[in-house]
Amino acid sequence: MTTYQKLEARFRQVSNLNQIASVASWDEAVMMPPGASVTRNKAMAELAVTIQKLLTDSEVGQWLNETSESSLNSWQKANLRLMKRHYLHETAVPADLKQRLVMARMNCEQKWRKLRQENNWSAFFPALQEVLNLTRESLQGLAKVTNKPIYDAALALYSPGLTTDAVEKLFKELRAELPDLINSVIDKQKSETVIQPEGTFPMGAQKALGLELMQAVGFSLDIGRLDESHHPFCGGSPRDVRITTRYREDEFISSLMGILHETGHALYEQNLPDDWLDQPVGEACGMAVHESQSLFMEMQVCRSREFFEFALPIIQKHIKPHVLNSEALTAENLYRLVTRVEKSFIRVDADEVTYPAHVILRYEIERDLLEDKWPLKELPAVWNQKMQELLGLSTLGNDRDGCMQDTHWPGGAFGYFPAYTFGAVIAAQLFQQMEKTIPQARQNIRKGEFEVVRKWLKDNIWSQGAQLGTLELVKKVSGELSSTHFLNHLRNRYLKN
Amino acid sequence: MTTYQKLEARFRQVSNLNQIASVASWDEAVMMPPGASVTRNKAMAELAVTIQKLLTDSEVGQWLNETSESSLNSWQKANLRLMKRHYLHETAVPADLKQRLVMARMNCEQKWRKLRQENNWSAFFPALQEVLNLTRESLQGLAKVTNKPIYDAALALYSPGLTTDAVEKLFKELRAELPDLINSVIDKQKSETVIQPEGTFPMGAQKALGLELMQAVGFSLDIGRLDESHHPFCGGSPRDVRITTRYREDEFISSLMGILHETGHALYEQNLPDDWLDQPVGEACGMAVHESQSLFMEMQVCRSREFFEFALPIIQKHIKPHVLNSEALTAENLYRLVTRVEKSFIRVDADEVTYPAHVILRYEIERDLLEDKWPLKELPAVWNQKMQELLGLSTLGNDRDGCMQDTHWPGGAFGYFPAYTFGAVIAAQLFQQMEKTIPQARQNIRKGEFEVVRKWLKDNIWSQGAQLGTLELVKKVSGELSSTHFLNHLRNRYLKN
Repeated sequence: MTTYQKLEARFRQVSNLNQIASVASWDEAVMMPPGASVTRNKAMAELAVTIQKLLTDSEVGQWLNETSESSLNSWQKANLRLMKRHYLHETAVPADLKQRLVMARMNCEQKWRKLRQENNWSAFFPALQEVLNLTRESLQGLAKVTNKPIYDAALALYSPGLTTDAVEKLFKELRAELPDLINSVIDKQKSETVIQPEGTFPMGAQKALGLELMQAVGFSLDIGRLDESHHPFCGGSPRDVRITTRYREDEFISSLMGILHETGHALYEQNLPDDWLDQPVGEACGMAVHESQSLFMEMQVCRSREFFEFALPIIQKHIKPHVLNSEALTAENLYRLVTRVEKSFIRVDADEVTYPAHVILRYEIERDLLEDKWPLKELPAVWNQKMQELLGLSTLGNDRDGCMQDTHWPGGAFGYFPAYTFGAVIAAQLFQQMEKTIPQARQNIRKGEFEVVRKWLKDNIWSQGAQLGTLELVKKVSGELSSTHFLNHLRNRYLKN
Repeated sequence: MTTYQKLEARFRQVSNLNQIASVASWDEAVMMPPGASVTRNKAMAELAVTIQKLLTDSEVGQWLNETSESSLNSWQKANLRLMKRHYLHETAVPADLKQRLVMARMNCEQKWRKLRQENNWSAFFPALQEVLNLTRESLQGLAKVTNKPIYDAALALYSPGLTTDAVEKLFKELRAELPDLINSVIDKQKSETVIQPEGTFPMGAQKALGLELMQAVGFSLDIGRLDESHHPFCGGSPRDVRITTRYREDEFISSLMGILHETGHALYEQNLPDDWLDQPVGEACGMAVHESQSLFMEMQVCRSREFFEFALPIIQKHIKPHVLNSEALTAENLYRLVTRVEKSFIRVDADEVTYPAHVILRYEIERDLLEDKWPLKELPAVWNQKMQELLGLSTLGNDRDGCMQDTHWPGGAFGYFPAYTFGAVIAAQLFQQMEKTIPQARQNIRKGEFEVVRKWLKDNIWSQGAQLGTLELVKKVSGELSSTHFLNHLRNRYLKN
């Protein structure tokens, strides 16, 4: 065996164990009985340490040093670069610190589920402080070995190739345009009539609708599932993708759009290249590109007139028996409903026009927290102040809908949030690029011919694995990333007609 | 750290990883989409190898040699004995063989789910042959290091302390009595009227009934779940017990009794001692005692007049809306239904009087197969011949209801079956022992006061962990094991009134 082959064998072991970890972590969120959390936390931490040992073994460092690129093909070269990156990331954080962080995260996430409902910041705060401290300590180690500022290290953890400079630049462009754009859209929509479908929509009917539409756009139930959880997510592994949603009985649209969003993530995973499934280069490129795929599906494809013209008969089949005002079930009305813009508290329920404001707020806060600019106990006050500035809303005394609304920080995911807005911007740029080569793409969507769209995404994004970094991949497929396509998309959809 | 403490730390790691493996294996049977099986098999095999490496590490052998019993308390001494047993079992089988066996088992179990339904022995045979070959090879290694005949090695793997001699003795006693007993019971029951409840019983109503009764007897949903799978089982780990059942819409009794059976297993797990949860001595004693707990609950407690007098209002609440002949829902009629005896094909549906015949048949076959007395391809013919001898039934051309009915052999569990009949015999002996100290036990059951029964089981069995071997534990609690109590129980229940 060459040292490169030894590395592939080691990363195959890691991939296999990560697959089991992802099942157990899906189970924890979707299936696990509440009293099992203490023993499960210990077991998950043990598995994380076991995986880390395989990655940080000094043999791995030796093999990486001894492997020459010269005999490798381009996939193998990219794989080797990613292996080095993984090794660097893993060795930067001592096993002991890593294990304490896993425990602190799981503790904080489990507390979050209960305490968010109770709007109980003061009971939640110590658990979050512990996660922040340990995350900061981990990222400091990483920043040191990669010779980056701490927030750059955090960003690169989720979206390789993303930098604080790139975030500052894009967010500055968006900030310059968005406030006026949001107000113009809200003004325009004041005079438009939309009818909210009324009725009690049973979970079973909503699930059947979600399953039919997610399969229509391409989700394979042979290698995936749809379930319910507190916070919707796409988990599992490429050949066993688990997406979740949550249902409200008084309203079926938000759950449906959530399913289609997670389906975008799932399609990326289900279509990663067969030949590299168990190697780093066969994984998705990173979270910004991942989010671009969910938003491509949700925002570009599904929140369109064309999609609702296609989906209307399917929606009627499942929903008509339960709706009191069936005049609400027209393609035009449903399209208007899913493109309604308002300033609101909850990021996951936000429309695509106000969404970047939610992300900019979180970016500014998490950058400051990692850099230790102010103490965590001020978070509710800072959140409130920024929410006032950005969207004119107060979250005083309402932390449930303020700084306690997201699972990211309890889960230690500082540096993740910019991926959402980069995803939205990339999705718009990719969709407009696709339309250049497939001018009839919107007609295909109207007719339910999603395989045309899927083929374009598979050729350009899904089949590429993690060969390129975030901004490199975007550039290769559609030119340098800029805010232009996203802003054009918003103006076209929300101000033109 | 002393060497004993090092051993505890190592076995704690193993226990943690086994906990994750048990979640993934529950997921595979209950949740996993079909197309995920290939990648999942690889991942599970990887985890099994990882766990085996931790156990077979030469350091473990060294620590075991260097640890003196003198400074240990009785729990620790028993723990050390079990650690030695684990180490011996694990080192007897090379990692490579173990991994091939894991893959072969998972392949065969997955084929079994499909091919049993199709009654397709010839497609199933090669997969089972592979499992048999690799199991035999593994057991030969184990037999060698433990200096036992191969079938003794197989038995000890599931029920420590059980021997081929003990099985031969008990099964000989049962064989001498059972054929006449079965015929007498069937004769007696010919003149008795039983009314089969008719109707369509929705899964939701059956599940609600199962959940209510399993909780009534003591199952904690805080640390457990009830789900559906092809073959009912009790899985998970002591603080996260997952039981499953399967529902038929035309009949609700068999699923309910299945749930109460698995609840017996679950109560044992949920009540294992807190202080030893992650050590070998804190585990259940073995499968014969485990089965005694499920059969104590199902056969001794729940298939009784007293239980149905307690359960009737609960059964009526869930079932009455769906039953066409509500006169079937009386305690006496339901009791008669669940004590109906007939000669039938399927072990898991068999009554407690004919059940030992199913086990004796499997014992004779699996002992012969491990000793290579005849080729596996003759299995359908041998099964048919023994079924004719023991119960007068033919399975020619009906392997679905013959030699393909169980998941044990596809799963490599040769040597497991005797545990069922030992379990039944032990359960009867324990129940009669309990009645000596708690004469009003049957009245408690009639009133739904199950905590009295639970306390007796917790004190005598559940809290003991794996300190003693199968026959030692039975002897300590209730005297030497014999067939007398079981045969008395059958005569009392089935011939007296």
